[in-house]
Amino acid sequence: MGAPMLTLRKVADLVGGRVVGDADVEIRSVAPLDEARSDQLGFLASKRYTRFAPDSEAGALLVSAELHSDVGDGRALVVVDDAHRALAALMRHLHPPEPEEAGIHPTAVVGKGVRLGQGVLLAPYAVIGDDAVIEDECRIGAHAVIGRGARLGRQCTLHPHVVLYPRTVLGERVIVHAGTCLGVDGFGYTFEDGGHKKVPHVGRCVIEDDVEIGANTTIDRGSIGDTVVGMGSKLDNLIQLGHNVRVGALSLMASMVGVAGSTRIGKRVLIGGQAGVIGHLEIQDGAQVAAAARVMRDVPAGETVAGDPARPNREYLRTRAHVERLPRLVERVKKLEKAVDALRGRG
Amino acid sequence: MGAPMLTLRKVADLVGGRVVGDADVEIRSVAPLDEARSDQLGFLASKRYTRFAPDSEAGALLVSAELHSDVGDGRALVVVDDAHRALAALMRHLHPPEPEEAGIHPTAVVGKGVRLGQGVLLAPYAVIGDDAVIEDECRIGAHAVIGRGARLGRQCTLHPHVVLYPRTVLGERVIVHAGTCLGVDGFGYTFEDGGHKKVPHVGRCVIEDDVEIGANTTIDRGSIGDTVVGMGSKLDNLIQLGHNVRVGALSLMASMVGVAGSTRIGKRVLIGGQAGVIGHLEIQDGAQVAAAARVMRDVPAGETVAGDPARPNREYLRTRAHVERLPRLVERVKKLEKAVDALRGRG
Amino acid sequence: MGAPMLTLRKVADLVGGRVVGDADVEIRSVAPLDEARSDQLGFLASKRYTRFAPDSEAGALLVSAELHSDVGDGRALVVVDDAHRALAALMRHLHPPEPEEAGIHPTAVVGKGVRLGQGVLLAPYAVIGDDAVIEDECRIGAHAVIGRGARLGRQCTLHPHVVLYPRTVLGERVIVHAGTCLGVDGFGYTFEDGGHKKVPHVGRCVIEDDVEIGANTTIDRGSIGDTVVGMGSKLDNLIQLGHNVRVGALSLMASMVGVAGSTRIGKRVLIGGQAGVIGHLEIQDGAQVAAAARVMRDVPAGETVAGDPARPNREYLRTRAHVERLPRLVERVKKLEKAVDALRGRG
Repeated sequence: MGAPMLTLRKVADLVGGRVVGDADVEIRSVAPLDEARSDQLGFLASKRYTRFAPDSEAGALLVSAELHSDVGDGRALVVVDDAHRALAALMRHLHPPEPEEAGIHPTAVVGKGVRLGQGVLLAPYAVIGDDAVIEDECRIGAHAVIGRGARLGRQCTLHPHVVLYPRTVLGERVIVHAGTCLGVDGFGYTFEDGGHKKVPHVGRCVIEDDVEIGANTTIDRGSIGDTVVGMGSKLDNLIQLGHNVRVGALSLMASMVGVAGSTRIGKRVLIGGQAGVIGHLEIQDGAQVAAAARVMRDVPAGETVAGDPARPNREYLRTRAHVERLPRLVERVKKLEKAVDALRGRG
Repeated sequence: MGAPMLTLRKVADLVGGRVVGDADVEIRSVAPLDEARSDQLGFLASKRYTRFAPDSEAGALLVSAELHSDVGDGRALVVVDDAHRALAALMRHLHPPEPEEAGIHPTAVVGKGVRLGQGVLLAPYAVIGDDAVIEDECRIGAHAVIGRGARLGRQCTLHPHVVLYPRTVLGERVIVHAGTCLGVDGFGYTFEDGGHKKVPHVGRCVIEDDVEIGANTTIDRGSIGDTVVGMGSKLDNLIQLGHNVRVGALSLMASMVGVAGSTRIGKRVLIGGQAGVIGHLEIQDGAQVAAAARVMRDVPAGETVAGDPARPNREYLRTRAHVERLPRLVERVKKLEKAVDALRGRG
Repeated sequence: MGAPMLTLRKVADLVGGRVVGDADVEIRSVAPLDEARSDQLGFLASKRYTRFAPDSEAGALLVSAELHSDVGDGRALVVVDDAHRALAALMRHLHPPEPEEAGIHPTAVVGKGVRLGQGVLLAPYAVIGDDAVIEDECRIGAHAVIGRGARLGRQCTLHPHVVLYPRTVLGERVIVHAGTCLGVDGFGYTFEDGGHKKVPHVGRCVIEDDVEIGANTTIDRGSIGDTVVGMGSKLDNLIQLGHNVRVGALSLMASMVGVAGSTRIGKRVLIGGQAGVIGHLEIQDGAQVAAAARVMRDVPAGETVAGDPARPNREYLRTRAHVERLPRLVERVKKLEKAVDALRGRG
């Protein structure tokens, strides 16, 4: 990497930290503690990894204040309150987004009545359906397919192989990763004449401003009414949202979460990986769902739930502890049985 | 929407319902209760949503007979026995499938010996392998890849980015959603010479008539013998079927279900979202598997199973109740211990 | 199938088995017991399927030594120690890989500074980013997208629609199935100024020699440092590996496994389908994780864990048995309560 060197003084400046030791030490980039070389800043944010500190070849360490005392003397440090935030700031400085060229690749297929804004990039083999609207500075990746009548706000990025079904709507600055399908037909059938007959889905899939969606995720469009992902929410890879799900602003969902149809998820909700939520529920603002939890009831605002079926975390932990102590409970019951037998004999 | 208006009389006629109130009220489309405007028919099928009825701006309501008494007076209604079926019928009337144009896009790549039927649509950048057969009126989406020797019956629809591995077979009227891969190499290795050596998979992936498969789903082909999805079955998004799985007719699988190799699933089986089934099992006709259940034993015909590991539903509910009452059980044992101590002391 | 016929003598020779009965019987291919015809060798490796033996139309059976006595007399057999390994060997003989043509399809888009080795196949619509390196005899499937600066070692196979994000690195003989995305941005944000702000991910996704990865799987690249899948490991379909996950050599992961960021998985680790592992853990060499297990703590070398939360298998089975016997335990406590009441009354 030909990046310019940065002194620790400059690093501390960028991240709002303070230098301990030689502020003139220079680093070129950041690396995990156990991989860092002498021209790199080793990153330490978790007690778990302090064991790597003594042997790290890092030229200096970026460390959170609470771990400061855990790293030995003699190495220059940049100490910060929040190491993750500091890392992010530093990374943004070291790795500014590369300027992307715009332009319509000659192989892009653009339908009738499409409206393309200024500075749009259509990568090779992008296919844009009739009447789609793509606002300024959108970047449409290779092989992306934008269905008839879809609409993208300014500065959206579709990575390669994204599929937007017809009439899907993206706000501004939406990022969608490779292989993700938005606006898929919902899973709805009625059983008639001896077969499952498809229910038309005429709602849309609406993704609001500043949402980012991971790779190979699938979001169904609404049956009647829309499926909506709210402003600033972030979804990881391989997630499934059923028809008419509504997610509020600034929520986060980790990978492999599944949400069944018509469930409403509030603002600033956190859902851990592989969690599942059945249909027609309400998960209110600020709720947290632990990884792998199975949510089968509404979750009130601010509540943390865990387990299968999901219940308030305190209850989950208590029940789990009781289950783990079951062998001991059985022993106690055995003892009681013997004691009672003995008492009876005594009678 | 420029759809023509429908009187409630006409709606009732279409869906086999009866009008309560003014049969001349006109509506243009259907919407969820809390989104419907005055020219729309609000849809009410679940007690859960009756709370939205008083404030709904819907011009009229489509309501199931059992909820009729829950909605206040004064608004025109169409009352039906089965609201979901009525909605589906109405939707099919309001939103007939758009006529699809046929034709081979000049960018489609068609291999040697391919047989294309009448009225086939090959969208931009479809790639058809040598010796594939595509019967009449199939619609092959943009960037779909059809492997060598694959065969599609009449009127199949492949959405964009579908991949059929070589020799995959689809019956008639099969629908496959975007990003789905059918006929993938199964996950089979033997450990030899210090490494995992790939077992050739020479079976096929066979999808029978009227099957619909969601987006980003993966189905492996058979090792020897075929993987089969039976007539009229419907699979949701992000499902995985391992090699040599066989699914009978008219079964339904919700999103994120995983079925390991060689398991046989009967007819009219229902499997809930995120459920998992280990390999070499038999799930017989009419069985139901609850969402997130982990099936580790055969399931007899008509049985409903739930939980991890899955067991008959009644047993699951009973065990779950006992687990939830564990804290109380522990209290009871404590009390007994005290009582027994006291009794002993008395001796 | 126009394959030549093989005598059982020849089959036994190929797989290191012995013939019981007529060694001159000829077969053309292998099939499951219940599907095999008279010119096929029926395959029997599991007690579960011996019930199909009497009615099988197979011309002969390939059977493991331990099941030999379970199949009736009168049919020619090839008896082997390890039926799965014998099947694999026979399949490799009957179905040698088809010779693949090389060549750059005229529709492939190749960026600036790309280095293509000898005998490379670029299928229709493959898109190769600037400065990518593709070594000899790689086969790049239709619509595959290789990002800027990515590097592929010799004899890699990318099936159609694979996406490699920029700078992804594959070793030699790596196989990646359709729709899989490697090197995706990790799921990392810091909350600043009222929104989730993206953390740049500048690490890479590195896949070592002889790895095979199933369809529609997603692997994130590292934030700082790399995400790595070690030599000879095999991953199934629909798997998710988060940023900075490291997997050692020769490990196997079944479908739908999810591994959260920074977790380290050792060598020869086996992870069953739908299992989940939280972030920052260590799963040491030779450990086994049962299907659907939820790993929330480190797993020592050689340990087998199961359940939610995952615990050593013996403990899991014991706890599970206790849970299943809870109704009986409650009965015992009830009896004790009555007995104690009676004893008290007696006092």
